This record gives sequence, structure tokens and C-alpha cells, in this order.
Amino acid sequence: MDIQVMCEKLQNLQMERAAYQHASSSLYFDGSTVAPRGSAEDRGVVLGMLSQKSYELFVNDEVRVLLDELWKVKDEITPEQRRQVELLREELDQLTRTPMDEYVEYVKLSNIADEKWRKAKEENDYSIFEPYLVKIIEFQRKFASYKNADIPAYEALLDDYEKGMTTQVLDEFFGMLREKLVPLIDTIKNQPPRASFANEFASVQKQRELSDYLMEVIGLDRNYCNIAESEHPFTLGFNKHDVRITTHYYENDLLSSMYSVIHEGGHALYELNMAQEYQRTILYDSTSMGMHESQSRFFENMIGHHPAFSKLMLPKLQELFPETYENVDVKELYRAINHIQPSLIRTDADEVTYPLHIMVRYELEKRLISGELLARDLPEAWNAMYKDYLGIDVPSDSVGVLQDMHWSSGYFGYFPTYALGSAYAAQFMATIQKTIDVAACIENGDLTPIGAWLTEHVHRHGHMIDSQELIENATGEAFNAQYYVDYLAAKVKDVYGA
Amino acid sequence: MDIQVMCEKLQNLQMERAAYQHASSSLYFDGSTVAPRGSAEDRGVVLGMLSQKSYELFVNDEVRVLLDELWKVKDEITPEQRRQVELLREELDQLTRTPMDEYVEYVKLSNIADEKWRKAKEENDYSIFEPYLVKIIEFQRKFASYKNADIPAYEALLDDYEKGMTTQVLDEFFGMLREKLVPLIDTIKNQPPRASFANEFASVQKQRELSDYLMEVIGLDRNYCNIAESEHPFTLGFNKHDVRITTHYYENDLLSSMYSVIHEGGHALYELNMAQEYQRTILYDSTSMGMHESQSRFFENMIGHHPAFSKLMLPKLQELFPETYENVDVKELYRAINHIQPSLIRTDADEVTYPLHIMVRYELEKRLISGELLARDLPEAWNAMYKDYLGIDVPSDSVGVLQDMHWSSGYFGYFPTYALGSAYAAQFMATIQKTIDVAACIENGDLTPIGAWLTEHVHRHGHMIDSQELIENATGEAFNAQYYVDYLAAKVKDVYGA
Repeated sequence: MDIQVMCEKLQNLQMERAAYQHASSSLYFDGSTVAPRGSAEDRGVVLGMLSQKSYELFVNDEVRVLLDELWKVKDEITPEQRRQVELLREELDQLTRTPMDEYVEYVKLSNIADEKWRKAKEENDYSIFEPYLVKIIEFQRKFASYKNADIPAYEALLDDYEKGMTTQVLDEFFGMLREKLVPLIDTIKNQPPRASFANEFASVQKQRELSDYLMEVIGLDRNYCNIAESEHPFTLGFNKHDVRITTHYYENDLLSSMYSVIHEGGHALYELNMAQEYQRTILYDSTSMGMHESQSRFFENMIGHHPAFSKLMLPKLQELFPETYENVDVKELYRAINHIQPSLIRTDADEVTYPLHIMVRYELEKRLISGELLARDLPEAWNAMYKDYLGIDVPSDSVGVLQDMHWSSGYFGYFPTYALGSAYAAQFMATIQKTIDVAACIENGDLTPIGAWLTEHVHRHGHMIDSQELIENATGEAFNAQYYVDYLAAKVKDVYGA
Repeated sequence: MDIQVMCEKLQNLQMERAAYQHASSSLYFDGSTVAPRGSAEDRGVVLGMLSQKSYELFVNDEVRVLLDELWKVKDEITPEQRRQVELLREELDQLTRTPMDEYVEYVKLSNIADEKWRKAKEENDYSIFEPYLVKIIEFQRKFASYKNADIPAYEALLDDYEKGMTTQVLDEFFGMLREKLVPLIDTIKNQPPRASFANEFASVQKQRELSDYLMEVIGLDRNYCNIAESEHPFTLGFNKHDVRITTHYYENDLLSSMYSVIHEGGHALYELNMAQEYQRTILYDSTSMGMHESQSRFFENMIGHHPAFSKLMLPKLQELFPETYENVDVKELYRAINHIQPSLIRTDADEVTYPLHIMVRYELEKRLISGELLARDLPEAWNAMYKDYLGIDVPSDSVGVLQDMHWSSGYFGYFPTYALGSAYAAQFMATIQKTIDVAACIENGDLTPIGAWLTEHVHRHGHMIDSQELIENATGEAFNAQYYVDYLAAKVKDVYGA
């Protein structure tokens, strides 16, 4: 077939897939924000049909032949087209290598496992969930072997979320965190609790105004990005001209939604600033989960927890919530925002103890997949690690090993990306600070130069290059966890003294 | 092919079409309510793709053969399946009889015509729109001849919106309205304006609470029906378990949103109460536009403008807006709600003068299609009729002949259904009142018996029977406009005296 004809087919294939994806995302967004409660089942049927149509469009011999033929002439097409063919072939391989009957069986299992996990959590009874976890782990090992039988199963699983990441890099990364953070946290664990003004009443109406302000500060173009409310905050990019973030307002926890908006706003910038020419192709995508998380954590941690950010925000908070903030000074606000306290629940953790929650999960899931740790011994191992590293007694499995939904959903290899994202963000910031006066930008509420740097070095590339290559191009060196470890140690020192 | 196999194919075809429809509706709803302003173009591409996929699914030889084969054995399948085949064959005929190239040309034209109409309206310059109207009328005549060359073109067009409706019935209907209403309205045209309390400030927040109350009164199950905000109010039924209504709040016109919610609520009940077994088939649909409108007008006019409704609402309005309503009595509220005053704009018209706005449009569009009236003479004819029938001078075409988007969109034959809906509603009410104490139901805020009657005689039937048959089954006689004319005359008398 003529190369030009093949390239047109390649383009059409991606456009149609993108359209199905857009439609599914729209249904999902609606379902998570405003749809009536009783509508989920029928919407599920429609989502199933769209996903089947999209699957049929992609997984067939005609597409296989097209991609193989294009790969043969890869030196005669553009670099973008070459990358598209490369990524599409990888995806098609993945989809075809797993036997369909096993996959269907697995989907059924994970639905039940999810239900059992919920029940186990509610009733604080790990034994309800355990047999299903055993089966999920077995499936995960099998799927890993279909992906790549030549590497350890856990590394094959990591590839789904952070391509090219190895246990060697992660072991070293979490080792550094453990070594530096565990003793530091031990020294500050008996600090007084967070200042009480952070939990005073703040009306949802005023918090919505605060969200609008934050979106403006972050640099989100409201013409292409809006905000909605959902049970759990998330970001969804339909395309470059339509990105949604959500938040959840609590009247007695202003900072919760404030930092959700900043976090999701960082994700949204990534989606909004990918190159125009990648639209409706497989390149309009983040290069990895860790990279996506790096953008949300950059804004949440590097910007939002910066001393200058407290200076910027205090007048705004005083304007919106005068009764609560009129007698608060910048130092008090900074302390409240940066309060560090080992705690039980990952999603409520501060930025310093957060990676230790991830480290625990990483160590445990790696051993579960390798078989070193049995599912029945998981709660005991969990509780021991929380005691050792966070100095915390876990009073019940509901707030311990059963707190997250990731394992019941089969997301083994996902957790590390949460910590990697923060570490990437710290490395980006170290580079940015060489040329940009970050503190001044934040204090003036004008993040334009920082946003421009991120667009230039991260956002615009979409999935054109892999995450590790992107980091090297952007910062001039390979991923280096030292920046993150140093940043966290400095933060503890800054907040609590030496 | 085996009948059972064919029936399964029939079911799958309809399920897939319903799924595409659901996805498109969801995108449309999102676009009309919360989507970022700049997202329309990309969403349009996705909507186009979904519509193309749905078209390809339906318009092909395999489906044609399936439907023809099923029609041959129509006595061996269920009445529901027979009706499905009948309606699907009609639709397929319609779609295949119009040459594709003409249709594509027409879609392009109507996009431009819409733009030109907007511009003409903005600049108050009918001549910008006129040449496009001429072309649209030519296309409409051609399309009518493809549909059915044996009847007058306008009647073929009517069939799209109200199957079986004839100009003979409509001429008689509008003749009765004209004869009775024009002299009546003439006698009351110099009444004082509506009481000013109706236009006092009412916060959007409180109006939202009022909407929730109204939805409860109407009997909408919030588990399956929600409310959103959009530029123009509308109702969208994805399926029996997911129906959306929208409204638009004006801080200085409480009644506007109040009656939008009641109107759209009536539409929503129709969508919510169709038979479960019609779900995901072509039978899950209103039987006609007029019938859908009858349900919205039933609640807006028959219920919402009933004297008992003012009694029900006054305490609620006093609770929500004490400053405005504390000194208003039931009679004053009733007068404000039922204020009758000839006016320029159809969508702002009261229930008595409203059908005369429709009559003008009916007479004019009928003559435009037949060729009796030329597009260039339309404004003059419009203005003359507004003077004759409503006693109103039209100061400019922007608020005259250019006020509605229907003709620029090619909706010839649509307008009459607005008046027919009100007339059907009056006929239903006359029947209902024989067995149900309507005033007592409304005054107690418990419309359950009325809702049950409508479900039994209208809603549940979906598209299983045609509108005229439904009316006869429900009321024991054919469509009879006398009920509506009498109702309107009695209303004028009740509000303004003999």
C-alpha cells in the first residue's frame, strides 16, 4: 500500500479511537459529578458498548497489518508517525498477548474483589478480602509473564505505569528516603497539632470563589478548563481544548479543597499544554503516570507549600474568610500548611511523611508478587512497617492494609508513581530555580515563567518521548532522587528547626 | 433466517443505536450546561463521528433485509416487535429516499442559514437571511416530495413532527382559536401590567430551593432525574433511569424559572414513565412532538395556572422570599401568574395569547411551502397578522419575523405541535376531571392520582401507538379542540371577568 494512504489510515484510526475515548470520558465525568444516583447501571451498559466498539476498531488483522507495514518503512515517515506506530504496536501486542478468556475471567474477578474489599473494609475483616487478593496476585503474575517473561513479574507490571522503571532504581530511591526521613520524622513526632484556624467553618460558596482564584494563579485558561464537584477529586482531559478538574468541599477543612484544586490544576496544565499537532493521536497523552503526578505534585508541593505561597494566599484568605484569618500571620499560615505529623491514612498525609506510606506499599506489593510474602501475612507485615517507619500503631485493618482500593483493582506497580512524581517535581524545581526567581513569581501571583518552562520541557511533549528521556532532556541529568530527599529534609528543618 | 435469530438481531440493533444516542445526548447535555466555552468545536467532531457510526450501523443492506424479512413474518412476532419493525422501516425508508449528496448540501446550507439568521436578527436586517430562507424552502419542498409525493408538501413535513396530522384538522383548529380568542383578547388588551412583586429580586440560591420543591410536587423521582442550568431550558431523557431537566435563573423574574421547571418537569415525567420493556428500543420515545408538548403544557398550564396552584405555592413563596411575598394574597398571586397581555415575543407569551403566535407561524409557513407567499413578502405578512390578531405593532424584524430559529434550521411543520400540545393537554384534563378532584390534589400538593392517570394513558405507551390513537383511547373521542378553546375562554373570564 502507498505510504501516504497508510498514514491517512493511521490518522483516521487514532481519530476514531480518540472520539470513542472522548465520549467515554464525558459519560464518566457526568457520572462522577452531576448524574442522578440511579443512572449508573444504564450508563455502564453504554460505556461497555463504546469500549467494545473501540476495541473492535483497534484489535483486528487489518490494523495489525497496517502497523507492521508502516513499521517496515519507519524511516520514510515523520518522527511523530514513527512514534505513533511504535506505541500503537506496543499496545496492540499487549492486548493480543493476553488470552481473551483469561481477561474476561479476570474482569469478573476484579469486580467481585472490589466488592469484597469494600465489605472487608467496612467490617474490618481482612479475611473477607484475602482469598480474592490471592487470586488477583496469581492473575497479575500471569499477565506479567504475557507482557515480558524475561524480567521479574513486578518489573513487567511497573512498565504499565512507568515504562522503563526498574526495582533497582526504586529500591535505591526508597532506600534513600527511608534512611533520611525515618530518623528525621522520629525527632518531630511529638509536635503540637495543626493550628485550629485551619478547621474553622468556611462556606462552600466562598470556597468556590477561592477555587476560581487558585485556577487563575495556576494559569488555567477557563475557556478550556472548568471545575466541578465530585466525591473524590480528579482531572480528565478530553482534549487540549477541554479539560475538567473536580474538587470536594468540606466546610470544616478549607485546606483540603484548596490543595485538591492546586493538585488537579497541575494535572490539568499538562493536558492543556500538549502540542497541538498531537491532538487526536496516541501522542496526546502523558508519557507516564509518574510524569503526570509530577505536574500535580509540582504545584501542590513545590509551589503550594513554598513559603512565598503563604504570603500570596494570606490576603486572599483574609478577604474571603475575615473572621478566621484576620489575626493569622504569614508564619502561622505557613506552619499550618506545612504541618508534619505521621498519620495512618495515606491520602491525608503531609508531604514529608507521604513517601513513607508509598514505600511501605512498594515493599509489600513487590514481595506479594514475587511470592516472598503471602497474602495471609500481609496485615502483620503492614502493621510492623507502619510501626518501624512512621512510629504508628495501626489500630485496625480498615485504617491499615484495607485503606486503599488499588490492590483490589489489580493496580500492582501503580503506587511507586505517586512518590516518583514528587521526586521528578523536586528535580524539575532544582533546574527551574537556576534561571527563574521562583519565590518572586509565587509572591507576585504570576507563575507565567514557571508555566512556560514546564510547557517547554514537559507538557508539550505528550507521549512523544519516554519519561526518563524527558527528565534527562529537561534537567541535564538522569532521574536523581537526591533533589527530593534534600528538599524534604530542608522542609523539616525550615518548619521545625534543625 | 430463523425468526428468533432475527429478533435477537433486531434487539441488538436497537440497543446499539440507543447506546450511540445516549452517548451523543450526554455530550450535548454537558455542552449545554457545564462544558468550557472553548470546547464546542472538538465536541462537535466527536458528535459527528458518533452520528456517522450510528448511521452506518442502521443504513445498510443487511438491516434492510432483516427488517423486510421480519415484516414478512409480522404475524409471528410480538406486537411490540411488529411495531419496532414498522417504525424502523419507516425511518430507514426516509433516510434512504433522500439522495445523500442533496442531504449533505442541505446540512451545509442550514449551518450557514443559521449563522445568517443570527446576523440578520442582530442587525435587524431581514435581507441578510432572505436568500437562505428561499433555498431552505426549496430543499424542504424536495424533501417533502421524497417522503410522500402524493400529498401536499406541507403535510408531508407535518408528518415528521405529528404523524397523521393534516392541514384540514389544523385549519379547523386554528380557525376555532382565532374566532374565539381574537375578540376576547381585544376586550382585555388595556389591562394594567402584571403586579410588580413578580419582578422583585429573588436570589438564585433560593430559586434553586424552589426548583427542588417543584420537582417534588410534580412527582419527579430525584434518583433518576436531576436539574442543571443552561442558557435555554430543555429536557433530555437518556433512558428511563436518567432524565435531565434544565432551567435558567433570572434574579428579577422568579416566575420564569418556576414555570420552566414545571414545563420541563412535565416532559421529564413522560420520559421517566415509559414502559420498562421499551427501554433500549425504538419504542422508548414519545409518540409525537405534540404529545411530548402536551405533557409539559399539562403541568405548566393545567396544573401551574390552576387557581389551586396559587394556594399551594403562596406559603412556599412566603417561606423562601418573605420580604416580597409576606403581603401578597392568593388572589394577587393568581392574577400575576395568569396575567394576560398580547406581546411581541412567543416565548414570553401568556397561555391565552400563546396559540395566536403559533397560528401566525402556521399560516405563514404553510403558504411559504405551497408558494402562495414569497420569502420576500414574509415580514410584511408577519406584521399584518400580528396587528390583526394580537393588536400589536411590530417595531422591527428582530423582534418580529426573525425572533425564532425554527425556519433557519428548516423546522417547517414543527410550530403547530406547540399549540396542539396545549390542546391535547386540555382534552386530557377534561377527562381526568371526571374521576379525580384535581383542585384538591393540587391544593394538597399531592399530584399522585393525576400522575398515575397520565402514566397509564399516555406515558407508558411510548411510541407503541400513534398520537391520535392514544388520544382516542385515553379520552374516548378523537382530538377535539373545543376543550382547549373553552378552557382559554373560561380562563379569560375567570381572570378578568365576563
